[in-house]
Formats: sequence, structure tokens, C-alpha cells
Amino acid sequence: MNLFYVPEISAESREITLSEDESKHACRVLRLRTGDKVILLDGRGGTYTAEIIEDHPKHCTLHILDYQFEEMPAKEIHVAIAPTKNNERIEWFLEKATELGITEVTLLLCGNSERKQIKEDRFEKILVSAMKQSQRKYLPKLHPLTPFKTFISEHPKGALAHCYDGEKSLLQDVFQASGYPLLIGPEGDFTPEEVALAQQSGYDSISLGKNRLRTETAGLYACMIAVMH
Amino acid sequence: MNLFYVPEISAESREITLSEDESKHACRVLRLRTGDKVILLDGRGGTYTAEIIEDHPKHCTLHILDYQFEEMPAKEIHVAIAPTKNNERIEWFLEKATELGITEVTLLLCGNSERKQIKEDRFEKILVSAMKQSQRKYLPKLHPLTPFKTFISEHPKGALAHCYDGEKSLLQDVFQASGYPLLIGPEGDFTPEEVALAQQSGYDSISLGKNRLRTETAGLYACMIAVMH
Repeated sequence: MNLFYVPEISAESREITLSEDESKHACRVLRLRTGDKVILLDGRGGTYTAEIIEDHPKHCTLHILDYQFEEMPAKEIHVAIAPTKNNERIEWFLEKATELGITEVTLLLCGNSERKQIKEDRFEKILVSAMKQSQRKYLPKLHPLTPFKTFISEHPKGALAHCYDGEKSLLQDVFQASGYPLLIGPEGDFTPEEVALAQQSGYDSISLGKNRLRTETAGLYACMIAVMH
Repeated sequence: MNLFYVPEISAESREITLSEDESKHACRVLRLRTGDKVILLDGRGGTYTAEIIEDHPKHCTLHILDYQFEEMPAKEIHVAIAPTKNNERIEWFLEKATELGITEVTLLLCGNSERKQIKEDRFEKILVSAMKQSQRKYLPKLHPLTPFKTFISEHPKGALAHCYDGEKSLLQDVFQASGYPLLIGPEGDFTPEEVALAQQSGYDSISLGKNRLRTETAGLYACMIAVMH
């Protein structure tokens, strides 16, 4: 059955009208008709079975037949990552990380960041599409581009992956299931000042193994380790 | 320093001439000149420091100054994967898997494969570029598109990821460091006949967790688990 993301729906809803975009997608692109059934997701654990009662391409209206709720995953997987210079690469990270079960993403603005602007709307769409494709029930929370210092002051501990020498832990040995964001730097790495600031605050310096990984691969690898531990 | 992949070089080489393509890249694109030093990789563990003695854009010639050898990784990571319908997706898999340390890739032709042809030359180029980018010393071995049955007869055991019901192991619990390819099916999954054939031969059915993953994400996830175990 076709899936639609409808953030405004709730367990009490009996009837819902899709947005203009989604109505067009349902009635023009997918050619759904009155009487057809679809699945609605609210991105907060709820799955709704619904039947189209008006197949209007601008305000497609549905009657809700059934509601199921899935508990939020106990494990918080929050990756804070500097967007890559090449935008496609970070978009792939967002897609893959959603499939794997990331719960929160922050885009970090670092001293060495080459990309200082992001298209938040587009990133949100990628998360929604990956959520639907992988049949997840929770939409990862996307935070806006955040300066490194601000992030550290809001999240005093976590793990920071960097390439400087010094003592490092393996992420699998130090990962914690909540309040423990995983920080991945830009192509030119975090600056020594950023590493020092994070360490002073209480961050673990981590290694992601001996291979040199691109930013988005490092992000995904960190995410996979968190999923498994 | 700039890196070049020169498969024909060996520990005995004293002088080497780059291919026409690589010569053009060195002398026209990178504007390297006689006296400049570069790194050559043979993709079989050897790293060579070399000095340009003739900066000709069609036959750039180098004198080899130094040779270092890195032992082959003890762990064999062989992913056999059905190429995705969307070619970009499998190309990303090849790039990321190389960064992570895959040692062998086979492209599988399955009953449900939508893509029945691959551009082997292009795939090889992606592996070379990812090897250089991630400073690995071994080029993953790329096998041509292989029918599923042929693959099973040549590799009688390994792990097969599929979405059918039945008893499954976690890859991390059954992975073996040699002679144990990881098989990832096409968008429509392996056919029941393929699953049965593999199981009869001695394959473990594996699960990659509860999330539904795209082909290329499943391949990369399997590869990451193998890297870590």
C-alpha cells in the first residue's frame, strides 16, 4: 500500500485532508481513487490505515480506519556532522542513516567547514522519503546548522571523531544510549581548538578504525556502530 | 603528494612510464614537472616514491626512489551483491566499501535482478579512486557479473541476507574471516529457489537487523559488520 507522511495527524483524528502536494501525488501521480486504502505515518510512532473518501487532486480527504503505535526506540542515536562540500554526499548520509535508525541529526558549522549553508527543507524531504522507504515509524529529528561552540555548550558530553594523534577510544567501547551525540568533522577535520574545547567539556576522542574515511562514510560508520552497540 | 595507481609496477622496477591517461592527468591537469615527486600504488600492497624524469603529457616517465610493502589484511571481506537498478547506488556502495576495507566484490546476476549489465571499467575506476582517496594499499578484487548458481557452485558456503521468514543468524555471530562471502540480493530479494539452493549448499541465512534496508545499504552494513568482527 502507498505510504504518506502526515505530521499533523494524531490518534484522535477521524478524518484528514492531505496537503496540496501530497493530494496531487496521491490523485494525479499515483491515480488513487475514492475507496482506495493507504497508510499514513505521523513520524512519531503512529501508523494509520485510511480510506480515500474524496480523491480531489488538491485536497484529497481520507477516513481513518485503524491506528497502531510503536514505542520510541530506547536508544538515542544523534549524529552531529559538518555538511560536506559536495551536497550529494551529505544527502546520501541522511538517507542511509535514516534507514539504519538514526534518531537525531545536527548539521555542524565548524572552523574548517567549506559549506556554510544548508537546504533544510530539502534535507527534511530526504528524511521523510527514507523513513517511508524503510518503513520506519519515527522521523529523525533534524536540527538546523549549529555553530560548533553552541553545540558543545548545549551537549556537554559525547564522542568526537578526529584524526589528530593522542589517546582515543573505540566508539563501540564508549557509546552511551542517551545524551551522547557523535560528532563528525568537515573535510579538513575539526580544528585543534575545537578538539580541545570538546575534550575540556567532557567529550571522548574516538577512532573509527585505521582507514581514512570521508566525512559521510565516517558519519554512517559511527551510526552503524551505535545501532549495533 | 599526488597518488597514481600503476598496476604494472613491481618491487624490481627502477623506472616506469605512466599510461597515456595518467600522463595527461599528471602533466596537464596537475601540471607536475620534471623533478616533482609523487606516490605510486600497485594495488597489491606496494607504495613507491618516485620522481618525474620526463614530464611528457603522453608518456610521463618516473624514476623510483623508494619502495614500501604492507602485508595483505588477514581478513577477507567478500561481498557478492546484485547491482541496483539505479546505477549510482551501486557505485556508491563500491566507493564506500573500498574506504571501509572490502577485499573482494562480485556483482551477482539473480532471478529478480533488474539490472543485467554492468560497466566493469567504470566500476574498476571507482575502486581505484576510492583506494587512492582512502590511502589503502590494496585494490579490492572486482569479479564480473556472475549468475547466482555459478557463484554458489564456486563458493559453497557463506552468508545470505534475505527477507523471508525462518531461522536466521546475526552476521556478527557467524562471520568467518576467509572463504565466507556475504550475499546481498536485488531490490526484489533473492527468489525462494535461490535461498533454498544456498541453504542446501551450506550458506547461513542472516538478518541485518529489523530495519528494511536498500540493497546498497545492506551491502555496506554487512561490510561494516565484517570489518568490526
